[in-house]
Amino acid sequence: MTNENPTADFDPRNWIWGVDDSQPRLLHTMIRVNDFDASLRFYRDGLGMKVLMKFEVESRRVSAMFIGFGDFYTGGVIELTRQWDVTQPYTHGTHYGHVSVGVPDVEAMVAKLESMGVEIETRPTKLKPGAPLVAFVKDPDGCSVELIQTLRR
Amino acid sequence: MTNENPTADFDPRNWIWGVDDSQPRLLHTMIRVNDFDASLRFYRDGLGMKVLMKFEVESRRVSAMFIGFGDFYTGGVIELTRQWDVTQPYTHGTHYGHVSVGVPDVEAMVAKLESMGVEIETRPTKLKPGAPLVAFVKDPDGCSVELIQTLRR
Repeated sequence: MTNENPTADFDPRNWIWGVDDSQPRLLHTMIRVNDFDASLRFYRDGLGMKVLMKFEVESRRVSAMFIGFGDFYTGGVIELTRQWDVTQPYTHGTHYGHVSVGVPDVEAMVAKLESMGVEIETRPTKLKPGAPLVAFVKDPDGCSVELIQTLRR
Repeated sequence: MTNENPTADFDPRNWIWGVDDSQPRLLHTMIRVNDFDASLRFYRDGLGMKVLMKFEVESRRVSAMFIGFGDFYTGGVIELTRQWDVTQPYTHGTHYGHVSVGVPDVEAMVAKLESMGVEIETRPTKLKPGAPLVAFVKDPDGCSVELIQTLRR
């Protein structure tokens, strides 16, 4: 990020993904949620993600929050969008599956989330012999989140 | 990844996300697609992603493909899943929004994708003065993909 003063032509505060990438990269996955507090309880207090940035676009009556385990430059980011005028639950199609989170201890994470009232969709299991434990949980909007063990214990 | 021989208890070939993470991280976003060839035309030939791994689970009658700009350890990965017995188009709910890809030149990428027959949902525009160009295109399954400029030109 540069220290240049913002102008109408270039305002570095709006280039949160950086200004000097010569190659494409994946930036984030966007999902719509009904209740930021509920989402933060799951993604931040439960999974351990951090809030990287929040903003509102009043003209579009929408708020957004970027959350991640790292920052805007490393690893993946999730964008949570809340539309001010939508109070009905969002619908789930069959196209989108899940976001997958690697955690050092799937059983411990599932136990923690369950103690917080999170719905456990699939309890820790191995899809193949010798494979890492995998589980599926539901975020507050009913969206599957996969947990894959990434520390050999 | 270790060089250990696989056992029923630990088979390093199945720990594609690594074995030594002490902190959680985002691994991938999974979407279901009808036609791998069409998906590869868009994500590989169009956006420039690489195929990291393909596999089939015959017992579940499903094939999967991990694609990304980097590898399993850096940046984000998309998992494309094809269910052998699903020939109808997948449905799109309102919960899932999009995957976002940073590209050095949004206008050039949109022109390239359009020449390949990709549907352009929103032509390159700036959401704010001084912000990077942003566009939305549709993948072969009708799913929005956001393009954000990540090189100041």
